[in-house]
Amino acid sequence: MKAPIASYAITLADVSAAAGRIAPYVLRTPVIDSDVLRELTGRAVVFKCESMQRTGSFKIRGATNAVRSISEADASRGVVTHSSGNHALALATAAAERGMPAHVVMPENASPTKRTAVLRAGAQVVTCGNSGAEREAMAAEVQARTGATMVPPFDHPWVMAGQGTIALEILEQVPNAGTLVIPVGGGGMLAGMAIAARTLRPDIRIIGAEPELAGDAAESKRTGRRAPQRPPVTIADGLRTSLGELTFPVIRDLVDDVALVSEAEIIAAMRIIFTRARLVIEPSAAVGVAAILAGRVGGAMDLPTVCVLCGGNVDLANLPWSALPA
Amino acid sequence: MKAPIASYAITLADVSAAAGRIAPYVLRTPVIDSDVLRELTGRAVVFKCESMQRTGSFKIRGATNAVRSISEADASRGVVTHSSGNHALALATAAAERGMPAHVVMPENASPTKRTAVLRAGAQVVTCGNSGAEREAMAAEVQARTGATMVPPFDHPWVMAGQGTIALEILEQVPNAGTLVIPVGGGGMLAGMAIAARTLRPDIRIIGAEPELAGDAAESKRTGRRAPQRPPVTIADGLRTSLGELTFPVIRDLVDDVALVSEAEIIAAMRIIFTRARLVIEPSAAVGVAAILAGRVGGAMDLPTVCVLCGGNVDLANLPWSALPA
Repeated sequence: MKAPIASYAITLADVSAAAGRIAPYVLRTPVIDSDVLRELTGRAVVFKCESMQRTGSFKIRGATNAVRSISEADASRGVVTHSSGNHALALATAAAERGMPAHVVMPENASPTKRTAVLRAGAQVVTCGNSGAEREAMAAEVQARTGATMVPPFDHPWVMAGQGTIALEILEQVPNAGTLVIPVGGGGMLAGMAIAARTLRPDIRIIGAEPELAGDAAESKRTGRRAPQRPPVTIADGLRTSLGELTFPVIRDLVDDVALVSEAEIIAAMRIIFTRARLVIEPSAAVGVAAILAGRVGGAMDLPTVCVLCGGNVDLANLPWSALPA
Repeated sequence: MKAPIASYAITLADVSAAAGRIAPYVLRTPVIDSDVLRELTGRAVVFKCESMQRTGSFKIRGATNAVRSISEADASRGVVTHSSGNHALALATAAAERGMPAHVVMPENASPTKRTAVLRAGAQVVTCGNSGAEREAMAAEVQARTGATMVPPFDHPWVMAGQGTIALEILEQVPNAGTLVIPVGGGGMLAGMAIAARTLRPDIRIIGAEPELAGDAAESKRTGRRAPQRPPVTIADGLRTSLGELTFPVIRDLVDDVALVSEAEIIAAMRIIFTRARLVIEPSAAVGVAAILAGRVGGAMDLPTVCVLCGGNVDLANLPWSALPA
């Protein structure tokens, strides 16, 4: 495995600086030994519970690091993004905490629940058409009109450095971790954590976990070229995006492998976490669990495998395994 | 508050012995700081997650202590109980682990889910009529026929000592705990924990938490006389029973207060735990949370209040707050 090189978007120093910057505003989330995964796989598995993070996902780390990195002069003009998921809620929350305006561009077909949560967090919601092009155009228009700072959901040094702080905590909480299993969508969390973990622990095994139906990261690593986004159909709605220009080179060089899992494997893993580990997680957080259960993670069985449960924002009235046999 | 006296069913030494006896078979469950309860109440609240315990509740502690306390001569004749809830599953599991037969007397109207779980754990299920008298009569008959050792769900020294081990763990995990909040049904957990905690920390505040609709423990403390069981209607189905002959004197003398909560408060607390703390719990485990949220716990606000989340065996397809306003 290569060592981190200076040309990546961030270094360990950026992640460490982010950790200090965001500490007053985010939780040091608990790690929980999983008796159930040990029983099912023979591995010592530890969950890093970002599902219990403020705003219900790790996204508050990158959003807070971005918001707190903006200069005093720019702060009054606020921030803008066009994510409709956990990043939007996180950015709205982080901006409100600094007393800054936040503009969130959401498509007409965004869920009312998400729209309400973002509004409650104090953001301005700007509605646009449903295509990616319409969303980007509207976000650019808002930025031009307001002078707000664009904070994209993953492909930005501030965001990557913020998400990377999860790795710093894990290496303190589980010093002998042998393997990290990290869900990958746009790759902000995976790349940020890889920069930090690979620098501090050159020998650690770093595995991305990705839905087959959004398997662009696995393909990108295999071909060495950034693959385009797949149709956004996986139940793991936080992982539908493709890698970014900044996240891809890090993942290409510093991540050992990207494990793919099927939709049925994601749902079955999510059910095990609810019914046996007794944790509330969203489908994206089940993707790493599914990779471990499927035996696609590799590495030492006796050293702890730390699996990031990246979020807990799920509709409890529509848990997805009702269609599966009991 | 009185000091523990020698005439109670158990002493701290029994709890300590139980801890050693059951250690290979039960989990040292995690404690989790609750950011959400701090935000909502201003108290430093820590959850003791027996919801993540093996078999999904703390009951495996008392059941294992009982099973492992039976003499070699008696072991081959097995154990019998007439609980239909978490104790039945725990006893079946503990007996199977020692290679002993377990007979579980269940009423005709017991839920198929619970019956299946007990059968899967390896127990013999004996069906009886639905009244308490029919259940006791059938259990006595099974005992007479098989020579099995009766292991009641709470009113037994072995069971009380096993449940008391939760307090030993809490005092190690949260050494500066100021208050313990412990759900109470038959009182095995509350009395066992009170014996241990009051002996080790005479100044600690110990609060039982009980549904108004099963408020016999609060009444028993108020009147000084053991009150009868209420109609079994509360949603907190693990807490419907009344105090036992052995648990009552301990709770009368060593517990500071029993806080009562309404059904609506239980459901609202359960919803907060699912949607904001992201933990899967059963209604009985929400009763302590509800007491804290209602401000009925008292004691120092700045010392940690440890709330036992006693179980996580819940029907996820029928979460109870769908009837509440969003």
